[in-house]
Amino acid sequence: MARSPSGESVIERVVRILEAFDPETPALSVNELAARSGLPSSTASRLVDQLVSEGLLRRDASRRVRVGVRMWELASRASPTLALRQAAMPFMEDVQAVVGHHTQLGVLDRREVLFLERLSARRAVVNITRVAGRLPLHASSGGHVLLAHGPHSLQQEIIASPLRRYTDATVTDPTQLRRVLADVRRQGYAFCPGHIDPAATGIAVPVQDRRGRVVAALSVVVPNDDEARTHIGVLKTATRGLERALAGPVQ
Amino acid sequence: MARSPSGESVIERVVRILEAFDPETPALSVNELAARSGLPSSTASRLVDQLVSEGLLRRDASRRVRVGVRMWELASRASPTLALRQAAMPFMEDVQAVVGHHTQLGVLDRREVLFLERLSARRAVVNITRVAGRLPLHASSGGHVLLAHGPHSLQQEIIASPLRRYTDATVTDPTQLRRVLADVRRQGYAFCPGHIDPAATGIAVPVQDRRGRVVAALSVVVPNDDEARTHIGVLKTATRGLERALAGPVQ
Repeated sequence: MARSPSGESVIERVVRILEAFDPETPALSVNELAARSGLPSSTASRLVDQLVSEGLLRRDASRRVRVGVRMWELASRASPTLALRQAAMPFMEDVQAVVGHHTQLGVLDRREVLFLERLSARRAVVNITRVAGRLPLHASSGGHVLLAHGPHSLQQEIIASPLRRYTDATVTDPTQLRRVLADVRRQGYAFCPGHIDPAATGIAVPVQDRRGRVVAALSVVVPNDDEARTHIGVLKTATRGLERALAGPVQ
Repeated sequence: MARSPSGESVIERVVRILEAFDPETPALSVNELAARSGLPSSTASRLVDQLVSEGLLRRDASRRVRVGVRMWELASRASPTLALRQAAMPFMEDVQAVVGHHTQLGVLDRREVLFLERLSARRAVVNITRVAGRLPLHASSGGHVLLAHGPHSLQQEIIASPLRRYTDATVTDPTQLRRVLADVRRQGYAFCPGHIDPAATGIAVPVQDRRGRVVAALSVVVPNDDEARTHIGVLKTATRGLERALAGPVQ
């Protein structure tokens, strides 16, 4: 059903259209969309019309196309991941109030950390993550936590793959990464001074659901200085509260 | 292209599948999905397989289907609405810290208020809204603000339609609603004591973008008592800060 001559389904083509949008280019003409998604203009135009009529995309005053709020609503209202984010929000606010820098919640998705939420302070240190943004598992503190507690096959796969170096401190050596992941499991946190930016330290702890499975990493990004280690206890404490809330129903 | 015998497109059927999920039933079997979306089982099964392979849905350990995090990511990362929500977050936290009850951000979508965000305090008053939830325009303070500043045709349409009564205080009379909307435009806020629940008062103010268009309503839900009016100034002050941030780039 519903396959193009190239054998691609409508759903695959819709995903290619949606993937064409990013934070730097939230509005695109149909021609730009066609070029970015590699679809013929006529196909892109027809799919855009249908997506607009369902509210998944919308046209702005200049006829450029944007992602529609209906898409977000359908993605969000029954999402188990967003329920996790909602449970985490009060505890993330606690961490942000105490630490005064970026506080983030990330989950494992397709060999990367996907950030569900990020709270930022007004004078916080440099930080490249954003909501619905991603980071590689080997480079970020959240990634270390999620990889350390992830499937063994994923650990093997990441360790065997080329690892991008962001700074001199990024863990790119397979043996070192294996050791770091063992440390994370033993210590209960990941500590990444300068791994992505020399000025910043990432710290992350695992968040377990009621069955003890690690479902997320709660992390902060703070200045890379002698004080950074003092925040580990804050994260651990907030995470205990969050885990109790997740184990619910009564907090 | 890609139409079923009923003339419905694949995209329409995908939306029907996604609409079958709600916060009370975030996980469904394929048969339940077929029944709820009104699609033949074979069609639902095929579409679910494709949606799962793209990550837009996922299967849990018991083979039930849930909304996938990839769907949320595609909906969120380039969404102008979510950029608004991200800009509003620090100001919403300010309101929540000062007022100590629910703080919400809503936008107009398809004749309803759609809530992009809700921050809640631990001991806050009863409140039926939730993130990605909706309320009718005539009943909620956010709805009054968005309707008062919305298209004239929408006002006519809502005023002419049957208006659900939640409590004795809900505005259901056309003449009264017209007068309330005029008050909202003149005063710069909506004040709804007991309109949805006798115990709660909704208060909302309009949020304008850099061109002076009302793009959202910032609101609080507080106890329905003599103190409620004192929160209007808090909302107005936070909203001025938010509007300056939206007018950016320099705050």
